[in-house]
Amino acid sequence: MKKNVLIIGAGGVAQVVAHKCAQNNDVLGDIHIASRTLSKCDAIIETVHEKNAMKVAGVLTAHQVDAMDTPAVAALIRETGVQIVINVGSAFVNMTVLDACIETGVAYIDTAIHEEQDKICETPPWYANYEWKKRGLCAEKGITAILGAGFDPGVVNAFARFAIDEFMDEVTSIDIVDINAGSHGKYFATNFDPEINFREFTGTVYSWQNGAWQENAMFEVGHDWDLPVVGTQRAYMSGHDEVHSLSANYPQADVRFWMGFGEHYINVFTVLQNLGLLSEQPVKLADGGEVVPLKVVKACLPDPSSLAPDYTGKTCIGDVVKGIKDGAPVEVFVYNVADHKEAYLEVGSQGISYTAGVPPVAAAMLVATGEWDAKTMKNVEEMDPKPFFSILDQIGLPTRVKDANGDRAWNA
Amino acid sequence: MKKNVLIIGAGGVAQVVAHKCAQNNDVLGDIHIASRTLSKCDAIIETVHEKNAMKVAGVLTAHQVDAMDTPAVAALIRETGVQIVINVGSAFVNMTVLDACIETGVAYIDTAIHEEQDKICETPPWYANYEWKKRGLCAEKGITAILGAGFDPGVVNAFARFAIDEFMDEVTSIDIVDINAGSHGKYFATNFDPEINFREFTGTVYSWQNGAWQENAMFEVGHDWDLPVVGTQRAYMSGHDEVHSLSANYPQADVRFWMGFGEHYINVFTVLQNLGLLSEQPVKLADGGEVVPLKVVKACLPDPSSLAPDYTGKTCIGDVVKGIKDGAPVEVFVYNVADHKEAYLEVGSQGISYTAGVPPVAAAMLVATGEWDAKTMKNVEEMDPKPFFSILDQIGLPTRVKDANGDRAWNA
Repeated sequence: MKKNVLIIGAGGVAQVVAHKCAQNNDVLGDIHIASRTLSKCDAIIETVHEKNAMKVAGVLTAHQVDAMDTPAVAALIRETGVQIVINVGSAFVNMTVLDACIETGVAYIDTAIHEEQDKICETPPWYANYEWKKRGLCAEKGITAILGAGFDPGVVNAFARFAIDEFMDEVTSIDIVDINAGSHGKYFATNFDPEINFREFTGTVYSWQNGAWQENAMFEVGHDWDLPVVGTQRAYMSGHDEVHSLSANYPQADVRFWMGFGEHYINVFTVLQNLGLLSEQPVKLADGGEVVPLKVVKACLPDPSSLAPDYTGKTCIGDVVKGIKDGAPVEVFVYNVADHKEAYLEVGSQGISYTAGVPPVAAAMLVATGEWDAKTMKNVEEMDPKPFFSILDQIGLPTRVKDANGDRAWNA
Repeated sequence: MKKNVLIIGAGGVAQVVAHKCAQNNDVLGDIHIASRTLSKCDAIIETVHEKNAMKVAGVLTAHQVDAMDTPAVAALIRETGVQIVINVGSAFVNMTVLDACIETGVAYIDTAIHEEQDKICETPPWYANYEWKKRGLCAEKGITAILGAGFDPGVVNAFARFAIDEFMDEVTSIDIVDINAGSHGKYFATNFDPEINFREFTGTVYSWQNGAWQENAMFEVGHDWDLPVVGTQRAYMSGHDEVHSLSANYPQADVRFWMGFGEHYINVFTVLQNLGLLSEQPVKLADGGEVVPLKVVKACLPDPSSLAPDYTGKTCIGDVVKGIKDGAPVEVFVYNVADHKEAYLEVGSQGISYTAGVPPVAAAMLVATGEWDAKTMKNVEEMDPKPFFSILDQIGLPTRVKDANGDRAWNA
């Protein structure tokens, strides 16, 4: 049993994590929020109090910390007495925060692979580039580290595990489909930090097919998916963290990730990309100064957190899993539908932040109760999905299954 | 009779001006080129020598000058003994260079209206905002100042004057149509400085119709024009300098300017514009720094002068002038067709720079011979167009006329 949580980060996802931790502080204990900018932590705490989200009276405190500074994070862990760290800071801080958890002997949970600021879209194997190098050390020291425990990666990894375990003898393919059918009403906006968002689409698209990494260009491979609630939606094959861990765990299956994009998004993206405005390499201005174009695009785009109040519509994220059962082909879609407006009313965030922020809190609750306290490094598909789904059902992200037998709750 | 020329500026248009002055230095005398960056002047001089462009042996010298500094420009005029200044520097330096000419008593020629760096797309009357305020002083001191003597404004003003004088008793409309049917082979590029180029299209579109200024949005009013050589081309009503001077001289006529744009250009422009990336107002970056988005876009786009070697195709720029002759309606199209490749082979520049740079040299030659030495401030339509066309015929931009009687040279 572990308790007391330190949330690293103070963006849109961190706000959801803070609200959900507060709503479940009877299980999780003290809640601490730390980021480089203290005022952003304070602002989140204010929204938690506005919503009266604390289930029981308890600690909810803001801290300033540079998450790139392992000794500073370790000192904060010791000072606050937390036993679980939920890292929803920038993708650049995973390794420094993980190191602090290993050093102090506390559990670590994150939602996306580590990235280095000066490298974009590194070639797979992604987890093996950074996180998995610490797996032996975690096992040796009994450190629980749950990697990629957001929605995708995260819940979709559990969807795959569940579909395979429940419905088939053998898996042949896993297609993760991420559709945001919501509307923010702006000319153009990214749903999370543009610097991270665009990085997902500026490089080669890697998928795992026929037992090997395959390469495509972004927007090269499109497919229309007919989905519950959101209807038929076009999505494009993209690279994504979970393709790596799932293909490592199910190497016999094709593993692909599909992200939904409208024509307008693709057009704006293509213009910016072709002009070089998504580059993270500095360009020289006429006056001799230097600036990174992507940072200027980011400054011109709406702040993703500003989208929440006017966001309407739904997301549908799920796994189309195909395999063989008793010698015959079988196909199942395991999925969740979330609503932007409901997310905003509950925690003051849009649906994209909501789907990303709720699952790591579910994971933290499972670590707290001991069910997921693995005492080594794990990806989500390596953990039992059922208790995860049970908590997600309770805290806002119910899992459903659609197959030849109908569309129903996962445990119906 | 005046002689010896100082060229202000060292961009793509200045290169054409330098070549054409060199090719006609028997008329124009010494040639001096000055800009803020001496090396750019030296580079132009090198291309003049490479092409063996000097008609007779003579002076061709580079100078460093800050054209915003009137005393410095005046000192350079005195030091070099020039009697004609061709200003093809940035649109921001018109008034400081004009002041230097007035102070030293030499002739001034430019190709575009003055702009202030911090004001974009000012409301008409444009020339009256700056240049025309000096008209009285020019008349009093006998200073020849020929305003807007590029192609558009410039040659198109002479086209209008010619059409009206030759073919009609009364003018009812002047539609200036500027089509670049060439291809530079890049994903996207502007044909001249993006900072100036985009400024033309980011504000309200002003036209003169029904005896008053009318306002439209950019790309709101489109028209397909059926033109010689380049065929049917779509153009959009835009604001442009000559709409002001022509409407002041022919207030009874509708005066409109039409710029040709392809779908792709409009799409890229619209994306950049809607994202705020064409703004000249600084934005704050996440790291606290400030930068002007338009300057970053400029840094990412190809240098307009780099387009020349691969530019192919033709431009067609002309005036559709309608009026009444002997009580019946009459319509005439006065125009020029220029070729990108030919321009590059002759002077090392693309066709857009060529059409902009040749006319002020023709104007300078007319000032030198005395035919256009007006000893006051004039817009081009206030001067006799025929000697202008005669020189343009000789130096690379022949004028043609198309009407009910056929398609022919203006003097056929």
